[in-house]
Amino acid sequence: MERNEIPGMGSCRIESGFWDRYIGVIRNGVIPYQWDILNDRREDAEPSHAIDNFRIAAGEMEGEFYGQVFQDSDVYKWLEAVGNILMLERDPHLEEQADSLIDVIVKAQEPDGYLDTYFTIQAPEKKWSDLLECHELYCAGHMIEGAIAYYQATGKDQIYKAACRLADYLTEIFGPEEGKMHGYPGHQEIELALLKLYEVSGEKRYLRLASYFLETRGTNRFFEEEFEKRGRTTFWGGARIPEPNERYNQYPYTYYNQFHAPAREQETAVGHAVRAMYMYTAMADLAAKTGDQALFRACRRLWDDVTTRQMYLTGGIGSTPSGEAFTKDYDLPNDTNYAETCASVGLMFFAQRMLQCETDAVYGDVMEQALYNTVLGGMNYEGNRFFYVNPLESVPAVCEANPERHHVRTLRRKWFACACCPPNLARLIGSLWKYMYTVGENRINVQLYIAGTARLKTGGQTLLVVQKTDYPKEGKIYFLIQGDGEQEVEVALRIPGWAQHYRFTINGEEVVPDQVEKGYAVFCRSWKKQTELQAEFEMKAQFVGANPKIHYDLGRAAMIRGPLVYCLEEADNGSRLDELVLNTEAGIRETVRPEWNGYVELEADAVRIQSPESQSLYMPYHPVKKKVKVRAIPYYLWNNRGEGEMQVWTKAE
Amino acid sequence: MERNEIPGMGSCRIESGFWDRYIGVIRNGVIPYQWDILNDRREDAEPSHAIDNFRIAAGEMEGEFYGQVFQDSDVYKWLEAVGNILMLERDPHLEEQADSLIDVIVKAQEPDGYLDTYFTIQAPEKKWSDLLECHELYCAGHMIEGAIAYYQATGKDQIYKAACRLADYLTEIFGPEEGKMHGYPGHQEIELALLKLYEVSGEKRYLRLASYFLETRGTNRFFEEEFEKRGRTTFWGGARIPEPNERYNQYPYTYYNQFHAPAREQETAVGHAVRAMYMYTAMADLAAKTGDQALFRACRRLWDDVTTRQMYLTGGIGSTPSGEAFTKDYDLPNDTNYAETCASVGLMFFAQRMLQCETDAVYGDVMEQALYNTVLGGMNYEGNRFFYVNPLESVPAVCEANPERHHVRTLRRKWFACACCPPNLARLIGSLWKYMYTVGENRINVQLYIAGTARLKTGGQTLLVVQKTDYPKEGKIYFLIQGDGEQEVEVALRIPGWAQHYRFTINGEEVVPDQVEKGYAVFCRSWKKQTELQAEFEMKAQFVGANPKIHYDLGRAAMIRGPLVYCLEEADNGSRLDELVLNTEAGIRETVRPEWNGYVELEADAVRIQSPESQSLYMPYHPVKKKVKVRAIPYYLWNNRGEGEMQVWTKAE
Repeated sequence: MERNEIPGMGSCRIESGFWDRYIGVIRNGVIPYQWDILNDRREDAEPSHAIDNFRIAAGEMEGEFYGQVFQDSDVYKWLEAVGNILMLERDPHLEEQADSLIDVIVKAQEPDGYLDTYFTIQAPEKKWSDLLECHELYCAGHMIEGAIAYYQATGKDQIYKAACRLADYLTEIFGPEEGKMHGYPGHQEIELALLKLYEVSGEKRYLRLASYFLETRGTNRFFEEEFEKRGRTTFWGGARIPEPNERYNQYPYTYYNQFHAPAREQETAVGHAVRAMYMYTAMADLAAKTGDQALFRACRRLWDDVTTRQMYLTGGIGSTPSGEAFTKDYDLPNDTNYAETCASVGLMFFAQRMLQCETDAVYGDVMEQALYNTVLGGMNYEGNRFFYVNPLESVPAVCEANPERHHVRTLRRKWFACACCPPNLARLIGSLWKYMYTVGENRINVQLYIAGTARLKTGGQTLLVVQKTDYPKEGKIYFLIQGDGEQEVEVALRIPGWAQHYRFTINGEEVVPDQVEKGYAVFCRSWKKQTELQAEFEMKAQFVGANPKIHYDLGRAAMIRGPLVYCLEEADNGSRLDELVLNTEAGIRETVRPEWNGYVELEADAVRIQSPESQSLYMPYHPVKKKVKVRAIPYYLWNNRGEGEMQVWTKAE
Repeated sequence: MERNEIPGMGSCRIESGFWDRYIGVIRNGVIPYQWDILNDRREDAEPSHAIDNFRIAAGEMEGEFYGQVFQDSDVYKWLEAVGNILMLERDPHLEEQADSLIDVIVKAQEPDGYLDTYFTIQAPEKKWSDLLECHELYCAGHMIEGAIAYYQATGKDQIYKAACRLADYLTEIFGPEEGKMHGYPGHQEIELALLKLYEVSGEKRYLRLASYFLETRGTNRFFEEEFEKRGRTTFWGGARIPEPNERYNQYPYTYYNQFHAPAREQETAVGHAVRAMYMYTAMADLAAKTGDQALFRACRRLWDDVTTRQMYLTGGIGSTPSGEAFTKDYDLPNDTNYAETCASVGLMFFAQRMLQCETDAVYGDVMEQALYNTVLGGMNYEGNRFFYVNPLESVPAVCEANPERHHVRTLRRKWFACACCPPNLARLIGSLWKYMYTVGENRINVQLYIAGTARLKTGGQTLLVVQKTDYPKEGKIYFLIQGDGEQEVEVALRIPGWAQHYRFTINGEEVVPDQVEKGYAVFCRSWKKQTELQAEFEMKAQFVGANPKIHYDLGRAAMIRGPLVYCLEEADNGSRLDELVLNTEAGIRETVRPEWNGYVELEADAVRIQSPESQSLYMPYHPVKKKVKVRAIPYYLWNNRGEGEMQVWTKAE
């Protein structure tokens, strides 16, 4: 097996100016910076103490645990990002760092397999006493994911074996049998990790445990019982509280943590958005692995709810900071929302697993929508500043003044006390090649258009698939395809939802797809002879409107071009962006700009309706109307020129 | 002294269809309903237990304290409303109820004068241990206000004497002298009450104590010290907390409770809006009584900050539910605001006291703006449902779905667990006659245009002033004025800020005022012979805009007519009000409607920009534009036709 390969499917290497720069940023910027943070070597950041926690648990150092109860997960996510990056290219120096870390992690693991430095150091008697809040299973999940990535990248199995020991230990204490705990995590994550471990190891017990966690959730009163057993104390609140189902961040725990109903009976996406995404990802993965159609239908129902009723144009999810959560269908405020970067990363996970169940272009569309907008926008261009919250409207003075908008940061930050988003971005971008293709029986599906070279196995042969494209700057994609067998293979290209027109050529001649199904243009033939397949998706800037059930977007339009959502920034348009009214009939002009590795700027006509400056708060309405041109940049590039207003949805005629 | 008289100033009786109905609602609806609530006789409301608390404290009944720590204040506010209503017309049945209540209150008072049923029943050892949170001085203030009102209305002095005992007791335990407490209340109220008591009794010690509370506030570390003394516990949180200045509702206590600086050095309005209003009211009253110009300047600075930078068009204040508080200048969100009814009642108190310091029309303007919009809008037309929060935009589906908008109720409610707003409305409306006039040396100022008969003392004579008007439905006011002396007296009419044109006649002949100063048209003459003075303020509907520093109102206009702010309701305009764009050039049409005791409906031209219904969240922008007519009703009448959308600020061309 070569590195950079998915067993049974093949390998893929990205060769894209756009993406290689981001991957370089992760390799040369984010990962080393994060390493310094984890080792408390940055004076410009809050101490992390994350690796010291492992040293203390390992007995190498004296001290107390410090940080969030889930601090360990930062270390594991770093390891996963490292694994993903090493899978692209080995790096002895980076491996040396990782190996030294792995030594400490393995030493911190207890003889029975238990691994969680908070409890080992701080409260060994309280292990597994608060699954709702204490993240032991969450950390275990990230440990397993990190271990797998590092093992697959390097072949070194020290951490992988530790992960198996941890997972084995979990199979001993959780499960349906009498004497085992009938619980499940407050923050889902272990489920998807166990499914990955099953995939790598082939050990069915890991799949069984993942399934147990998923299927038991919401069917018993485990969290209430452990709460009673603890004497009605909460970890976060500290104090005794009178009610078992005390509300948490305005949400009852049951909804916040998604145990209001059995997982497969849940009708709508509720509660903490990242938790939801991790759970749905595992559900979809389990459905794919078991062929459980009822479970798949539950996944599809939740998918539809998220993506057709609760998702921002930018692929962001989570309409409220209260519980970092979903609210209700069509409730998508632009200025008080959450839309956490990690939630959109999680949405990509979910989409990827749904594609294992079903080849439908909606999954690829959403994956792309989240990736090119909220996920990339979670990071600045240089890759050293991050957003947690991704608003669709930001007015710095308002965010500073108003408590309901305080959580919306007006500048990206270096790091966070709860540092989930930067490492999540790092591990996602490092493994982006895994999202480009899916493979079926005698069929290859292209999900993401990214220049690169893939060798994909299907129907007993391997197809070399070379993609050349300047996507997302343009919609032309050249494929060079060559199989090593005679048999016909379907090559299916996802037709992006935004593409109003498209055409295809094979070896220079215009062709009609053999079929178009579920959003894919399918070309069925033998690829024995090297074949040039070209797709051209008309990538023209357009105005989009929102479903009128979304109150917040009434009378407004946004601009998109291809998968990119655009926004107006103060730097280009002055402040008071909400004075602008777009003239949507005059069309949108496109200009290629050299900044930021090249991007397409959009320009549209608008009227600015401006009330005069005044000493009074209110006055007779005599505004001045000015015809102006507004300039828009891709949303993922916003906030790269200092603090300023930004808006995606602009008033429109 | 007749009832219904302000000593030294005169008497006034309202004779207005508009207001008499509201006063009747208070007399026949609110006060009896509230009496039932206080006595736990309503099955449709949460138990109040308020009078039972007094019975228990009085030793007449066994039991525990129940309710908010400030539950006593509900009883006192009822008593004040009763006093105010009895001052208009005696009512033996009502007095019987009040007298029976007073017996219990007086019996609940401890021998030394202490009176607070929570501490008497529940925690006698904790008296005065938590001034920041426990409302003892707040309740004392309302007790004094209630007692004064009832005494002035009936001449019965049992409760008045109890109030003096309570106040005397306070003078013994608070003050600058060694051995006394150097504290001040967490919720201001006692200060303005003591100043009232000084006015009635002439006892300087009450003024001195009010001044002590105001002037000591923010100059020492009293709250920190009592917090340390209590062992760092909080009343509301219950638990020990690690920091003395723990944040409270996103505000540090210091700002929330306005002790971040000495009162007279405070630059901007911050923190809990009702607390701020009560404090500023007392400051202005003290400045008026002492002639302290520096204190007056501080009041004016705060007044200007509130009314020219932090006030809604509706006279609402308090931009956030987080601490029910002010935020920053020009931060006035329409859909996530608080704008508590009580805060606007408090703003009227403040305005009234400022008028004691200075005759400037801005005070009367704001008094009227708050009264006719947020204050009246706090109650439904029948007077049996109340709003706590007064938004300028309300979309029921959004308020239900979104946690940042949950506090905005979409229907008025019968009562509240924290029942401050209904009794505050009751006592305000019952005493509205006190807000109509102010009297200077040889001068009468008309502040509010309300039909009625007043006898006002100035310059050694008494002027009979009869107002006849259909204000606020029309801007014509007839005054019949007759003095009983020869001397010339200035009669000054406030020229409302909204009046773009106005004219005056005397005995039928058009006249020019002798002078126009600080917003008043002043007529100086002998009124020995009965004189007819007529004012006509052009009451024409107009569009108003907002200061462009208010982000939330950019590109929007509102409609007003006279002092009334208008709003669009779903009942008249269908849902999705934010699809509408006003054509502000076509003018506004007025129609007199018979409903709700008669009101003027406004109609304007608009375009509805409507995206088609869709299964998708987002789609190419192809809206349908329809010319429509929008109908607007006075804001104070909104939400009298069931649940539905409402908006004050509409998109405008």
